[in-house]
Amino acid sequence: MRRVTSQELVAHGGQVVTVAGWVHRVRALGHLTFVILRDRHGFIQVVAEGHNEQLAAVANESVVAVTGEVALEERAPSGAEVRMREFEVIAPADPALPFELHKKDLNVGLDLVLDHRVLSLRHPKVHAVFTVQAEVLAAFRDFLRSRDFTEISTPKIVASGTEGGSELFPLRYFERRAYLAQSPQFYKQMLVGAGYERVFEVGHVYRAEEHNTSRHINEFTSLDLEMGFIDSEEEVMDLEVALLAEVFQRVGQRCAAELELLGVTVPGAVEPPRLPLAEVQSILKDRYGKGSPPEGLDPEGERLIGEHVAQSGRGDLVFVTRWPAAKRPVYTHPDAADPTLTRSFDLLFRGLEITTGGQRIHRYDQLVGNMVAFGLDPAAFEHYLEVFRFGMPPHGGLAIGLERLTARLLGLSNLREASLFPRDRTRLAP
Amino acid sequence: MRRVTSQELVAHGGQVVTVAGWVHRVRALGHLTFVILRDRHGFIQVVAEGHNEQLAAVANESVVAVTGEVALEERAPSGAEVRMREFEVIAPADPALPFELHKKDLNVGLDLVLDHRVLSLRHPKVHAVFTVQAEVLAAFRDFLRSRDFTEISTPKIVASGTEGGSELFPLRYFERRAYLAQSPQFYKQMLVGAGYERVFEVGHVYRAEEHNTSRHINEFTSLDLEMGFIDSEEEVMDLEVALLAEVFQRVGQRCAAELELLGVTVPGAVEPPRLPLAEVQSILKDRYGKGSPPEGLDPEGERLIGEHVAQSGRGDLVFVTRWPAAKRPVYTHPDAADPTLTRSFDLLFRGLEITTGGQRIHRYDQLVGNMVAFGLDPAAFEHYLEVFRFGMPPHGGLAIGLERLTARLLGLSNLREASLFPRDRTRLAP
Repeated sequence: MRRVTSQELVAHGGQVVTVAGWVHRVRALGHLTFVILRDRHGFIQVVAEGHNEQLAAVANESVVAVTGEVALEERAPSGAEVRMREFEVIAPADPALPFELHKKDLNVGLDLVLDHRVLSLRHPKVHAVFTVQAEVLAAFRDFLRSRDFTEISTPKIVASGTEGGSELFPLRYFERRAYLAQSPQFYKQMLVGAGYERVFEVGHVYRAEEHNTSRHINEFTSLDLEMGFIDSEEEVMDLEVALLAEVFQRVGQRCAAELELLGVTVPGAVEPPRLPLAEVQSILKDRYGKGSPPEGLDPEGERLIGEHVAQSGRGDLVFVTRWPAAKRPVYTHPDAADPTLTRSFDLLFRGLEITTGGQRIHRYDQLVGNMVAFGLDPAAFEHYLEVFRFGMPPHGGLAIGLERLTARLLGLSNLREASLFPRDRTRLAP
Repeated sequence: MRRVTSQELVAHGGQVVTVAGWVHRVRALGHLTFVILRDRHGFIQVVAEGHNEQLAAVANESVVAVTGEVALEERAPSGAEVRMREFEVIAPADPALPFELHKKDLNVGLDLVLDHRVLSLRHPKVHAVFTVQAEVLAAFRDFLRSRDFTEISTPKIVASGTEGGSELFPLRYFERRAYLAQSPQFYKQMLVGAGYERVFEVGHVYRAEEHNTSRHINEFTSLDLEMGFIDSEEEVMDLEVALLAEVFQRVGQRCAAELELLGVTVPGAVEPPRLPLAEVQSILKDRYGKGSPPEGLDPEGERLIGEHVAQSGRGDLVFVTRWPAAKRPVYTHPDAADPTLTRSFDLLFRGLEITTGGQRIHRYDQLVGNMVAFGLDPAAFEHYLEVFRFGMPPHGGLAIGLERLTARLLGLSNLREASLFPRDRTRLAP
C-alpha cells in the first residue's frame, strides 16, 4: 500500500491508509493510546484503542508504519487522525537518546546539537532552518535564471589563491601542491568575458581563518553572481535589491509554517539606503560615540549602523559603499572622482555583513598596473588576465554568504546553526 | 541608453537602439562594412555605409557598442540588422588570438581549447555545451523539488573517506589531516534519517584517480539524491527514469537552438531495460564473443551492451542491475534471494556509465556486521552509524555524473569538454 504523508492525510478522510514516520511521542491514557508520528512534512496523530502494551514499548524515534482509518479531526496536528488497525516497527531506535526531541525547544548546547546533528535536525525548529535555506537557494537561482543568468560550476582545487596567499587550505594534488578556492571570483569574471555575460554559482568556498567566532565557519556556501555590460556598481546593487526582495517574498509565502514555528518575519519592502563608508563612520561617531578601525568597520560598528537604519524606519538592510582602495582586492574598480575610493559595497543585514560586491576593473592595462601597485606579479595571473587581453566588458558582481543570510533571516545567533555540518577551527565531524 | 540584446532586436524594428558585444567578424565590401557582433544570445549584424576605416581596423573579439537604427531583415542572424550611426570600442582585443573563433568549427586540439578556455568558450559550439548543462541542472532540481526533495549542502572537507582510504586527496586542516570528499554518500543518507526523507545535492566530488582517460576527471559535479521509505531499488530506478525523461524533454524544448547547432537530438521516450549484470555478461559473450572482468563490465562491454540495446530498438539507456556484493560499497543492500548479489544498479547512457545507485542497508546490526565483513572498523564510522541506531527507514538513492551526462547527451568524446575548467592528472589551470 502506498504510504500517505501527513500533508496528504486530510484528503483521505474515511479511507484506510498506511502512514509511516518517526515516533515523536507515545501517550498511554488507559482507554486510548496516542502516538504522534513525525514525517517530512509534519505530524500524524495515531490513536489505538485501549492500552496497547506493544505500542507503549516502542522507543521514541523508532521508525514505524501504521495502517488504519483516517478520521477528520480538527484538533489533530494534520487535521485528521489515523485509527490504528495494524502497526509495524520498521527500525527500532536505541532508547538512550542524547536529548529529547519532543519538547517545544531543544534547549541543549550547540556542541551537543552539532555532535548529534542527525538527531538535532529531527527537532522541528532545527529542521525548519534547512527547509527555509533550501527555499532561499531555489529563489536565488530562479530569480537569476529569469534575469538571463547562466549557472556555472568552477573548480575548487586551484593552483594559487585569488587574493594573495593568506587563509588558504593547502592540498596535495598528485605531485603538486594546490589549494582550496577561497572564492570563484576569477572564474566568474572569466566566464562573463567568455561570452556568458551573466553568470551565477552556488558553491563551497574555503577560508583557513584561524579565528573561531560565531560569525565564521571555514567552509561555507557562497551565492556568487557576476554580470557584464554594466554602467556602475549601482546596477549590481539594484539587482541585489530585487533579488533579495524575491527571496524574502518566496520564503514568506512558501515557508510560512517554518517562519511561524521559529517566530520570525521576513523583511517587507527592501530599499536599503546606500551610505558611503565615511558617512557611516561619522554616524557611528556622532550618534554612538563609537570609533571605527581606519578605513573599515568592526562587528560592533556593523551592528550599530544596522540598528540606526532600522530605528530610523529604513528597514533591515543597509549598503555601505565607496570603500577605500587600500581595503579592497586588486580587481576592484576605483571611483572616478576619488581614486583612493572604490566602486564597491558591502550589504549589512540586521547588523551583519552578508555581501561584498562592486564593479571590477575591466581594462587590461589598468588591472596589470594595479597588480604591480599591490606588489603582485602579473605573470602569476596569466590565465585570469587572458580574458582582459581579448575583450572584457565592464562588469561587476557580488557574493552572498548563504549561512549568514539564513542566520540573519531566522535570528540564529551562530552561523553554525545555519550549516548542516559546519567546519570550523576545531570541528571536522560529523 | 539601455542596451538591446540580439534576442530583443526584432522587437525594436524602426527604432534607434544601442547594441553591444564582441566583434565576431568584420567584412568590408567597399560600399558597405558589415560587422557581426556576438552577445550572450547570438549574433547581431551591423551595417555601416561605405568603407569605414575605423571599423575595419577593430580587432576581432574587441568589445564594442553600436548605436543605430534597427531594420528588419530576414537574412540577418537575429531577423534584423542595425544600421550604424555611432560606434565605440569599449575594450580592444589583442589581435594575436591563439585560434580563430568565427569559423563554423573550432578545429583545434583539446589542450589548446582548455589552455585558452575563456576564448574557446566564445565559440558558439563550445558556448552551447554549458548553456545546455545549466538547463540540465535546472531541470534536475525542479523535478526533484516537485517530488518533494529538499536541497542540501554537505561538507567537502572530511575527516576520512566514505569507502576506505583509496583515491583521496589529502589536505592540511589546521593542525590536522583531512581529505576532500569522494561523495556525499554518508551525508545524504544521514539527512534522509534526520527527517528530510528525500534530499538532493549538486556538489563537487573529488577522486584522486591516477589514470588519465577521456572518461575521468578528478573534480566533477555529482547530482546526488537519496530517498527514504522505499520498498526496493526499483523505486529509485523509476524515479531516475522520470527524472531523465524530464531533463531530456526540457533540454529538447529550451535548448533547441543549441542542439541544432551541435547536431544532436535528445532521447525520446525513456524506458531503459533493466538487465542483471550476469545477463549482460552473457549477451556480450554470445553476441559479441566478448569476455568481461569477473563480476563487472569494462568500458568496451559498456559500449557494446549500449549498442546492443539501441540496435534492438530499446533506446539509448540501459540499467545493469544485481551487482555482486563483492564489487559494491559496504552500505549496499544485499539481494533477498541471493545475498552474494545486491539491490544496486548502474545506468549506462549511450554506452557510458552515468549513474550508480541502489538500495542501502538501513538496519544498524546488518550494517555494522557488513563493515566487519569488509574489514572496516565500525568505531571509525561512529557519526554515520548514529542515524542507524536511532531509527533509519529503508532508503536508496543514486548519483549522476553531470559531466558524463552532458557529454553523452551532446556527443562529446572527452569528459573535459563538458567541464568549464577541468581538473585532471596533470591539469590544474586555468
